[in-house]
Amino acid sequence: MIGILGGMGPLATADFFAKLIEETPAQCDEDHVPVLIQSDPRIPRRPPAILDGGESPLPALLASRDRLIAAGAVALAMPCNTAHYWHAQLAADCPVPFLSIVDASCDELSTMAPAGSRVGIISTHATAVGRVFDAALEARGYVAMLPSDDDVVTRILPAIALVKSGQAERAGRLLEPAIDALLARGAVGVVLACTETPIALDTIKSPLRARCVDTTRALARACVRFWIERNAIPVRTEPVEVPHATTFRSP
Amino acid sequence: MIGILGGMGPLATADFFAKLIEETPAQCDEDHVPVLIQSDPRIPRRPPAILDGGESPLPALLASRDRLIAAGAVALAMPCNTAHYWHAQLAADCPVPFLSIVDASCDELSTMAPAGSRVGIISTHATAVGRVFDAALEARGYVAMLPSDDDVVTRILPAIALVKSGQAERAGRLLEPAIDALLARGAVGVVLACTETPIALDTIKSPLRARCVDTTRALARACVRFWIERNAIPVRTEPVEVPHATTFRSP
Repeated sequence: MIGILGGMGPLATADFFAKLIEETPAQCDEDHVPVLIQSDPRIPRRPPAILDGGESPLPALLASRDRLIAAGAVALAMPCNTAHYWHAQLAADCPVPFLSIVDASCDELSTMAPAGSRVGIISTHATAVGRVFDAALEARGYVAMLPSDDDVVTRILPAIALVKSGQAERAGRLLEPAIDALLARGAVGVVLACTETPIALDTIKSPLRARCVDTTRALARACVRFWIERNAIPVRTEPVEVPHATTFRSP
Repeated sequence: MIGILGGMGPLATADFFAKLIEETPAQCDEDHVPVLIQSDPRIPRRPPAILDGGESPLPALLASRDRLIAAGAVALAMPCNTAHYWHAQLAADCPVPFLSIVDASCDELSTMAPAGSRVGIISTHATAVGRVFDAALEARGYVAMLPSDDDVVTRILPAIALVKSGQAERAGRLLEPAIDALLARGAVGVVLACTETPIALDTIKSPLRARCVDTTRALARACVRFWIERNAIPVRTEPVEVPHATTFRSP
């Protein structure tokens, strides 16, 4: 099983789970990736810990990590960009691979934006201040562009809060101009570096999605690849007949 | 945390998770129900065990149950109707409450169909043969109506298989006439007693959904009620201001 540290927030974790299923080349239940998903919204909030010296979520994340490993996880993933501020500490002495949403997203960016190009980052203020994406982007030769302070305050942070309170459509409308502004300033692609933001854009079927990397889907794809390679599962390509009709028996 | 025995199939588990979130009166992450979801598609298939003397999933379900309890689950739920064939054995010596999708669904039926009325059951053949719903329906005075053998073979079982292979729209179109037939025969309501079937009808936004009990949603609501009552969480009724704008600080 792959262990999932989730609940930051719950809807983003559910979105990750749905995308993991979508991205799996499965024809029946048995083809799917076994996962153990902890969705615990009681993990201390990440932004105050990064921005204001608030309670660190690291002890809770470490406990969750170890709980998932004890329960049988052979790898871990965490569908929350901001929480990747602590990824190095979570991965350091981890006895199983801890996949990174940052690395998975930068890998996908390479299909959209050549090295050396400018890429926009849509994220919580905490993810930007915590420089969660900076090292990985720089290592691949990208120049990160951040939204204006005004767009962060009036669009991005309220949109994230709206998704967390179940108002994804309003969130999508609020978010689109902030992405447009990054593209107008020369970004070749935009990383949706907060797992609430793809939900907002998906809900309104925004055409801007084609210019963006969905970090949630990137992590889901990385998990599927990990599982297939680890188990050397042959990927089915032939169509599978709908079963049951021939095995049906009357009671 | 509430432990979820899932993966039967994975998409139904993801649908349950999304409905659990939808049904929670939450304004922020912290209002949500903490869950630990095992989605393990390797649990032996339920229908062959009921119909053909195939390998029983009970040992795997007991191991999963105990794994979730060891990891901190204070209650359990299993979003799969067919697997409730083993619910009594799973609940018998269970040290925590094991909520039942059958009881939760029959509770919802009472708002749609008065005692004494006829209710249709859409399920796997195994759920019908295993008489998973019979005792609970009889205890509430309902008369169960099953689909015709022809509808089971040509519509319901293929529709379930289509959802499991990602073709929910085709599944919905295939399923609708089987539900219509039960209503035409005098059913006051129809229980969608297979967690793949609400997904199929939701996907095509079928108008028949209003005549049906969604067992997945019924179980999700039961979990939310359990969590709120257990923790005596006051349900928020006042609107919550979108946060962040006033606490934003420049880096």
